[in-house]
Amino acid sequence: MGQSLAPGQPSISSSVNQAISNDYLQIAKTLAHEFKKTAVERDKQGGTPQIERDRIRSSGLLSLVIPKQFGGTGESWITAFQISRELAKVDSSLAHVYSYHHLGVTIPHIFGSELQQEKFYTQTVQNQWWWCNALNPLDRRLVLTPHQDYFVLNGVKSFCSGSHDSDILPITAVHAETQSIIILAIPSKRTGIQINHDWNNIGQRQTDSGSIYFKDVKVYSEEIFGDRTQADIPFRTIRACLTQLNLAHIYLGITEGALDAAKHYTLTETRPWLTSTVSTATEDPYILQHYGEMWVELQAVVHLTEYAATLLQAAWDKGIVLSEEERGQCALAIAAAKVTAARTGLAITNRIFEVMGARATSSQYGFDRYWRNLRTFTLHDSIDYKVQEVGKWALNNQLPKPSFYS
Amino acid sequence: MGQSLAPGQPSISSSVNQAISNDYLQIAKTLAHEFKKTAVERDKQGGTPQIERDRIRSSGLLSLVIPKQFGGTGESWITAFQISRELAKVDSSLAHVYSYHHLGVTIPHIFGSELQQEKFYTQTVQNQWWWCNALNPLDRRLVLTPHQDYFVLNGVKSFCSGSHDSDILPITAVHAETQSIIILAIPSKRTGIQINHDWNNIGQRQTDSGSIYFKDVKVYSEEIFGDRTQADIPFRTIRACLTQLNLAHIYLGITEGALDAAKHYTLTETRPWLTSTVSTATEDPYILQHYGEMWVELQAVVHLTEYAATLLQAAWDKGIVLSEEERGQCALAIAAAKVTAARTGLAITNRIFEVMGARATSSQYGFDRYWRNLRTFTLHDSIDYKVQEVGKWALNNQLPKPSFYS
Amino acid sequence: MGQSLAPGQPSISSSVNQAISNDYLQIAKTLAHEFKKTAVERDKQGGTPQIERDRIRSSGLLSLVIPKQFGGTGESWITAFQISRELAKVDSSLAHVYSYHHLGVTIPHIFGSELQQEKFYTQTVQNQWWWCNALNPLDRRLVLTPHQDYFVLNGVKSFCSGSHDSDILPITAVHAETQSIIILAIPSKRTGIQINHDWNNIGQRQTDSGSIYFKDVKVYSEEIFGDRTQADIPFRTIRACLTQLNLAHIYLGITEGALDAAKHYTLTETRPWLTSTVSTATEDPYILQHYGEMWVELQAVVHLTEYAATLLQAAWDKGIVLSEEERGQCALAIAAAKVTAARTGLAITNRIFEVMGARATSSQYGFDRYWRNLRTFTLHDSIDYKVQEVGKWALNNQLPKPSFYS
Amino acid sequence: MGQSLAPGQPSISSSVNQAISNDYLQIAKTLAHEFKKTAVERDKQGGTPQIERDRIRSSGLLSLVIPKQFGGTGESWITAFQISRELAKVDSSLAHVYSYHHLGVTIPHIFGSELQQEKFYTQTVQNQWWWCNALNPLDRRLVLTPHQDYFVLNGVKSFCSGSHDSDILPITAVHAETQSIIILAIPSKRTGIQINHDWNNIGQRQTDSGSIYFKDVKVYSEEIFGDRTQADIPFRTIRACLTQLNLAHIYLGITEGALDAAKHYTLTETRPWLTSTVSTATEDPYILQHYGEMWVELQAVVHLTEYAATLLQAAWDKGIVLSEEERGQCALAIAAAKVTAARTGLAITNRIFEVMGARATSSQYGFDRYWRNLRTFTLHDSIDYKVQEVGKWALNNQLPKPSFYS
Repeated sequence: MGQSLAPGQPSISSSVNQAISNDYLQIAKTLAHEFKKTAVERDKQGGTPQIERDRIRSSGLLSLVIPKQFGGTGESWITAFQISRELAKVDSSLAHVYSYHHLGVTIPHIFGSELQQEKFYTQTVQNQWWWCNALNPLDRRLVLTPHQDYFVLNGVKSFCSGSHDSDILPITAVHAETQSIIILAIPSKRTGIQINHDWNNIGQRQTDSGSIYFKDVKVYSEEIFGDRTQADIPFRTIRACLTQLNLAHIYLGITEGALDAAKHYTLTETRPWLTSTVSTATEDPYILQHYGEMWVELQAVVHLTEYAATLLQAAWDKGIVLSEEERGQCALAIAAAKVTAARTGLAITNRIFEVMGARATSSQYGFDRYWRNLRTFTLHDSIDYKVQEVGKWALNNQLPKPSFYS
Repeated sequence: MGQSLAPGQPSISSSVNQAISNDYLQIAKTLAHEFKKTAVERDKQGGTPQIERDRIRSSGLLSLVIPKQFGGTGESWITAFQISRELAKVDSSLAHVYSYHHLGVTIPHIFGSELQQEKFYTQTVQNQWWWCNALNPLDRRLVLTPHQDYFVLNGVKSFCSGSHDSDILPITAVHAETQSIIILAIPSKRTGIQINHDWNNIGQRQTDSGSIYFKDVKVYSEEIFGDRTQADIPFRTIRACLTQLNLAHIYLGITEGALDAAKHYTLTETRPWLTSTVSTATEDPYILQHYGEMWVELQAVVHLTEYAATLLQAAWDKGIVLSEEERGQCALAIAAAKVTAARTGLAITNRIFEVMGARATSSQYGFDRYWRNLRTFTLHDSIDYKVQEVGKWALNNQLPKPSFYS
Repeated sequence: MGQSLAPGQPSISSSVNQAISNDYLQIAKTLAHEFKKTAVERDKQGGTPQIERDRIRSSGLLSLVIPKQFGGTGESWITAFQISRELAKVDSSLAHVYSYHHLGVTIPHIFGSELQQEKFYTQTVQNQWWWCNALNPLDRRLVLTPHQDYFVLNGVKSFCSGSHDSDILPITAVHAETQSIIILAIPSKRTGIQINHDWNNIGQRQTDSGSIYFKDVKVYSEEIFGDRTQADIPFRTIRACLTQLNLAHIYLGITEGALDAAKHYTLTETRPWLTSTVSTATEDPYILQHYGEMWVELQAVVHLTEYAATLLQAAWDKGIVLSEEERGQCALAIAAAKVTAARTGLAITNRIFEVMGARATSSQYGFDRYWRNLRTFTLHDSIDYKVQEVGKWALNNQLPKPSFYS
Repeated sequence: MGQSLAPGQPSISSSVNQAISNDYLQIAKTLAHEFKKTAVERDKQGGTPQIERDRIRSSGLLSLVIPKQFGGTGESWITAFQISRELAKVDSSLAHVYSYHHLGVTIPHIFGSELQQEKFYTQTVQNQWWWCNALNPLDRRLVLTPHQDYFVLNGVKSFCSGSHDSDILPITAVHAETQSIIILAIPSKRTGIQINHDWNNIGQRQTDSGSIYFKDVKVYSEEIFGDRTQADIPFRTIRACLTQLNLAHIYLGITEGALDAAKHYTLTETRPWLTSTVSTATEDPYILQHYGEMWVELQAVVHLTEYAATLLQAAWDKGIVLSEEERGQCALAIAAAKVTAARTGLAITNRIFEVMGARATSSQYGFDRYWRNLRTFTLHDSIDYKVQEVGKWALNNQLPKPSFYS
């Protein structure tokens, strides 16, 4: 399973494994194996990983979390997160856009009517629609104005991961009259939508997380899922939990990928230091220490992340009757996983160079992309305030109340 | 369960909990509640906690891991470790000597014949014998010399935790002729045994971990369990795994106790800093940060430790057919737990003062005892070489081979 | 000089050394050598180090910073701080009470008239008066009420370091009518003063930092130095700078003492770990790493502390014309030194045990006292808010404005 | 001076400043200001910074450390290092190749005859020759074979920083017969030399640190400086000290540049986090904490580095009579500076993102280049073994013996 460091190595796996569907995980691993070959090159290019997106589309994995009753695979979130992690080991951009598809697909389930669920899910399965993310609620520049029998969207939305080559845009917009935040989903190719090629960042370079302009874009009432006044029902905020735990899994996967790559390099390329008294780098006491510490730190992330996944799946299964208390406990476990995954990951993706040596900085290896990807993606939301949220629990017994965002 | 920070606080607990026998854990919690009242005072005194040892004796908890067939309780190691952790929250000396009783009691199971098991276990249950520890294999100054129909012990043994007020001494000695290490167990009160009052250390002050002198002490053949030539059978070294994971649980318990105590103090005593702009210390952004970080770090220890316990119980249940591979995986999980528990614990027992303030250094609170206990007990064996052992796995796929000691 | 780790070791010293009077430093070193022999025992006892205080009295060191014109030695603060550091290496309680004498003696210089300076300094030199500290401005329970031709003090003051066996009490009190804080100094034995034996803390155990009760204690106008309305003159707050930098030097000294003691122990007692492949502990790669890292970290403290001392001496020499800008720069350098000294010190006094091993926890060595002393004294004022103060400078170019306290 | 974080900010500077020639530092600052404008773009391009190299050439700074008697500027190493640091703040590739010019220019001084010094220095000054570095002694693939009245070089040399556009190549080669390492210098354009365009690494991208092929390259006896059998004279290894301390200054400069850039971004772009209660990011308690801690950590590097520079200059001034003891003390101070600069720098260049936020990952800012440059350059030689070297001193009083390399 995931946390093994090398193929063929006996794994140390926890009880969470039993809940994972190995068939779908196997498909993801096969894809990951394939994507790995071009990951360094595609990181340099940036832009849209079209070939890889098409491979995912045709793999059937886009239906993964859609309920069976609508023709989907009906897999658990545990499987979905393991696939995020598996893809992230070799290419965290693909892990990002693939997993944000699921985070989009949940919108009808969380906020929609039964009719909306049926419509969106059936079509997603039939057409292998790829959902993306134009939901960023921190950006309030997109306005939805009611007209007689439709609505019109105008404005701009930032950080729209996976927007290029997407089929459906889940969106938050500010209602022109009530100022409340409205959630809706429309086809990405609808007239008036301009998806910009303006994502050129230091990491997560193939996520197309740029901006979208909306100019008099029509929205029909059946495309609107409800407003945020229902936010006081705990289940309505579960998408923030899904997002946060998905981040933790991707951070973990990136870190595992980095450590795997370093291990391969040390075993095959690294030379013993001239003042060491060892004959191979693999016996060096400090190199062994680095690996020992990195492995131990990684185990903490593995177990925190997998444990949070079991709580989250249980919360998801509860659905609308999920209590504040249950959501809070789930959010705490996720926060512990995410904070640890972020900090440990940044430390390890930096530290791997110590066990490889100067020649490992050659661009051909692209070993810096682990840190760049993680450095970029760990800024999704403030770690400092996530820690503060946990502190309010630890000191004051105050449960976190997830917002729509984090 | 264990990781909750306050009474009445909803717990975040993992699947391991289902394996714990709550009846016995409840007895331990009741005892812990009682021991807590005198813990600060007894830490100052050092010596033997006679009243508390008698309370444990009469509680029936000394039979906890003895198989039911011999009249014991037949509880799992998971329960035993949770009790170590529970006692350690309030008094890690008692956790130490109580848990080392179990580590002594395992000797007949691991190394003895069926007859020896029956004899020692039956009598332990009937007489509520308290086992201790004179096993330290690093100290080779105790010699066993064969005579015609008995043996004689001469020499000294150090670090004999729980020796005062003990009933049975499990011992390692060097065979005078073969130089091999022999394991045996004899009554603590046998003629020629002098248990010294020479344990006066900065932590774990009521563990009586001093030295024992042996002068012409007779040992009979039925008291000798076998020699260490069987060390190549993986199960023969499982006591090292038990010891190491017991350490991790005690380190965890100490840390949880420290954080609990700090929390209580901050909530009731700590004043806001004069240049802060908050009206109570509980709202201070840095105090919340400290608590958030300490809680997150502690969760890692909780999950690593509980996960290792499930692996260890499975390994124990396998018994003599345990494979090297299984033992290795178990030892790795335990190493991750122990290293993390030690480092996190030292950091937190130091850090709690930051969230309490200068007045918390008053000796009446004894808040330094958490660090002193942990600082003392974490030196049981080298953390650096435990990390190296893990590094050999992480880099070179080399499984650890536990020795008798660590 | 100070930062050498062993007698006879060639020192790495900075330019600050030239400003130190080696005669007085030598007296301090001789005293320190003597105090070292009983330091472990006296730490256990707590209470007042009467013999050692008398030795300091008769050494002439109490006149160290009193200007020559009043019969004092007229030494620089640089010398005074080096002596704090030197004493702290072996006994931080004595470093504490000795240096707080100087911090008391500055009061007439900073706040008093020329007449007051002359009177207090002349008498201090003639009688070898020992000043202490009843100044804690955070404790506002002591009230000064004006009567016709005198004043009366009533109330209580906490954290009065060095109060037992002191001759003069510098005091802050709240004026009963104006509520402003008044600074004054009176003989410790004046009627109505009750110095309590209530300091029993985990560290700095021989500092007598307990409370003093004042019951109708008469104060005469010539004993009152001025009020705090002058606080807007930068030089009036320089005592906070002196206090903070004195703390940094004592933290540094404690840490140097800890590392020295560890070095001596490792060289003479520590055994190589059984799975290491070295024949002596002094060749162990991890032990060398610990020493290397501790030494490097300590050098940072040495240089930050010594640099701050040169700025502070320059600020002191400026006297009343000291600008806000100059004071601010000085306060920043001191903050950097103090924060680093505190954090590094806590890390090293914990870490030394890793390079010594389990037997070093024997109470006979008292190796825990370094951590206990530092843990206690580093809570003098909030490190978190000191860092925040520096942050306001680093980000917003906002100079710190030292208060009377920190 | 250097450590100020913003133009116009009052600086905290140490005594070292008095030794710096402000004229030349000013020229460097002016150049740095100019280079800054294109640094992000040139980092992307890689290759040779021809325009910038020409600007440095015409500035006269290439003669900086050449003694006045040969027409050079005769500046101290302190000035040279400050210029490395100044350039590194904005462009560490230029700092690298500029400073390696000096490290090349020292070769005639350390190893050459008076005649060789005169010849090389006079011509370097007259022609504004740029020296580079083909000295890497770890790479022994380049062989010098004696012929009748000349020698011939054949083989390859790696990590030849600054080789493109260089005028002189200082080289180490293995003598074909004696196997000893020979130091020599020849014109870069001599027949048979092929400087490869094969440096394409994740950092220090404009340093041209690739390989050079040598095919039957003639070398004349006056171009050979002596062999390494003189390595037992302490002064012969001072170039390793110069190199190491130059690294420390460049690491420091990179880190200062990173913090400056972050500060500017936070002040102008960063928004307060949505769950914070502050109205601007500049008041956020955690952002202030990050800045406070980064600033404090940086001060340690500043003072360690500047102090080491004074020791090194003194050692340099001693020349051939430099003792082992003096060299050792100097090497220790440099090691402390370098290890701290590397670790602090890696931490800060990673941490700056926490105080800027997600939008700061846009490639337009190139904020990742600080980490990439530092990550690459800190692998010059093993930090772990540098720490071990210090540990041998701290524990065993064993002075470091610098090799030719580190």
